[in-house]
Amino acid sequence: MSSANPGKGYSRDSNYITTRITADGQDGFPVEPGRYRLVVSLACPWAHRAVIVRRLLGLEEALPMAVAGPTHDKRSWTFDLDPGGRDPVLGIERLQEAYFARDPGYDRGITVPAIVDVPTGEVVTNDYAQMTLDMSLEWTAHHRAGAPALYPPDLRAEIDAVNEEVYTDVNNGVYRTGFAGSQEAYDEAYERLFTRLDLLSERLERSRYLVGDTITEADIRLFTTLVRFDAVYHGHFKCNRQKLSEMPVLWAYMRDLFQTPGFGDTVDFDHIKKHFYLVHSHINPSGIVPLGPDPSGWLEPHDRAAMGGRPFGDGTPPGPPSAAETVPARPAPAQAASHS
Amino acid sequence: MSSANPGKGYSRDSNYITTRITADGQDGFPVEPGRYRLVVSLACPWAHRAVIVRRLLGLEEALPMAVAGPTHDKRSWTFDLDPGGRDPVLGIERLQEAYFARDPGYDRGITVPAIVDVPTGEVVTNDYAQMTLDMSLEWTAHHRAGAPALYPPDLRAEIDAVNEEVYTDVNNGVYRTGFAGSQEAYDEAYERLFTRLDLLSERLERSRYLVGDTITEADIRLFTTLVRFDAVYHGHFKCNRQKLSEMPVLWAYMRDLFQTPGFGDTVDFDHIKKHFYLVHSHINPSGIVPLGPDPSGWLEPHDRAAMGGRPFGDGTPPGPPSAAETVPARPAPAQAASHS
Repeated sequence: MSSANPGKGYSRDSNYITTRITADGQDGFPVEPGRYRLVVSLACPWAHRAVIVRRLLGLEEALPMAVAGPTHDKRSWTFDLDPGGRDPVLGIERLQEAYFARDPGYDRGITVPAIVDVPTGEVVTNDYAQMTLDMSLEWTAHHRAGAPALYPPDLRAEIDAVNEEVYTDVNNGVYRTGFAGSQEAYDEAYERLFTRLDLLSERLERSRYLVGDTITEADIRLFTTLVRFDAVYHGHFKCNRQKLSEMPVLWAYMRDLFQTPGFGDTVDFDHIKKHFYLVHSHINPSGIVPLGPDPSGWLEPHDRAAMGGRPFGDGTPPGPPSAAETVPARPAPAQAASHS
Repeated sequence: MSSANPGKGYSRDSNYITTRITADGQDGFPVEPGRYRLVVSLACPWAHRAVIVRRLLGLEEALPMAVAGPTHDKRSWTFDLDPGGRDPVLGIERLQEAYFARDPGYDRGITVPAIVDVPTGEVVTNDYAQMTLDMSLEWTAHHRAGAPALYPPDLRAEIDAVNEEVYTDVNNGVYRTGFAGSQEAYDEAYERLFTRLDLLSERLERSRYLVGDTITEADIRLFTTLVRFDAVYHGHFKCNRQKLSEMPVLWAYMRDLFQTPGFGDTVDFDHIKKHFYLVHSHINPSGIVPLGPDPSGWLEPHDRAAMGGRPFGDGTPPGPPSAAETVPARPAPAQAASHS
């Protein structure tokens, strides 16, 4: 959820419900397969992290997922994609109901991702940053065979450091750029964003992945922002020094990830574009959703495998998504008569 | 001038003042050096045609030029760049005054380009399509030595045919896309635009210029739209299948023209971006002007000279612009440490 703060820089409400689901149940919510429901939107970059981590770790059965529709009103994400407009497990129409079940006076953003305790219908947590780490570290008993180590102890300090820079300048930076309330706030956010992207590009010129030689939480957090870059942030948020597709190192890095099982197969450009262009009516009053960009480039060769690296380390790639969780509209390779 | 027509396709008001300035003075306004003043905005693609043609033909002294500021209010373009906010020759603050001098009840758009009769202060014509042709065909007595033939008799039918397609699908097509009042109107205009760009690209793969082997009026009319493509139409008007810089043939063709005297040296990206992003508040309510895109690519080699063609035919290139008419901020070549 996002709000513009006219006249000032944009500030993200980072006041989350920080209850954790842990192996030892320290907060009263122990890891338990089938007990919880991960509520996401395929449009949302913060929820997208959880979608990818869940799939890479093979938590689909242990932690079932509800997908909200791409748009929402002032009050809530809604389950308008489900028959009757209700999530079939939680039985609710609006995610807000699960927040109110937890706290009838809840007055902060109704955000995704959220994990709901199915027996009580209450939101346990919407703390997206902790959520994916807990999937890696607390849900281990339910990981698939071959699940990768996305947050390995020896790399944790470096992953945390990269994540912090990426969060400030990129993940949140695109919002600070797009929702800037003044030209000065925009200019500042834009410069920070592209300065950081240049630094990340230099780093990724030498290394296939951000930290170490395998995919980690750091790559996932950068991926979910950059996969939306050309589709929404470039035009809608005016992050337009270049498109991602015009930054050769980052673009090859992103194609590499996109073509890795668990990444591109979780990307729904239709939901992404509808969400951003329809919900942010203060910056797109016409409500018109652009037809571009042409997504066929995502499937072009990336030549990053020659750099070495072991995508899943000692683990293996996940299998294909289940039929229920397959994204309907996937980019198709460019046709023989390509656009020139 | 442009207006959105909510709920419907966008329609351009094409009801112009069609009085002509001719060699024989048939409409009462004979060609006469120093008598008239061409009023333009460097932001406006329609006015830009006249700026280029005037420069290519060397009409700078015979037909002096007034440059309005990049933004205007509901009522008029204004001379806010001039000392005291008045055009030093016409003595007016707002172009509207010259329209009212012609017709006190004038109720249509106050548009550029307009040619004003200096002695009476009245607008003679704002018919941009006829204006550039008349510069080529009626002002011949005042052309510089070596002025090119931009509308040669033997190519006229083909130039007219190309111009008509380019006008409908590209020149006006970007406005129909950006000001569409419905998703359906947008989709239709977008498809027409990119279908036409694909056809133009095929044509320009075989031929250095649009018609014949020299620069003609047809190239000028395509140039003034495409030079604005990445800076404003791609994001602001949602013409985003690709950027111009991602359409290799059109991009090389445009770099070739941009690097030709009389083209790139008339382009003011600062005025262009300020105009579109500040004036169209109905599609950009924040009024924030994007910092991108990086314009350094305009100066990269284009390799089109190898296709042959004689840019100015039997004529010669124009010299550099006068100090007074030099655009202040020109794209600089990319630095050694280029953005990656």
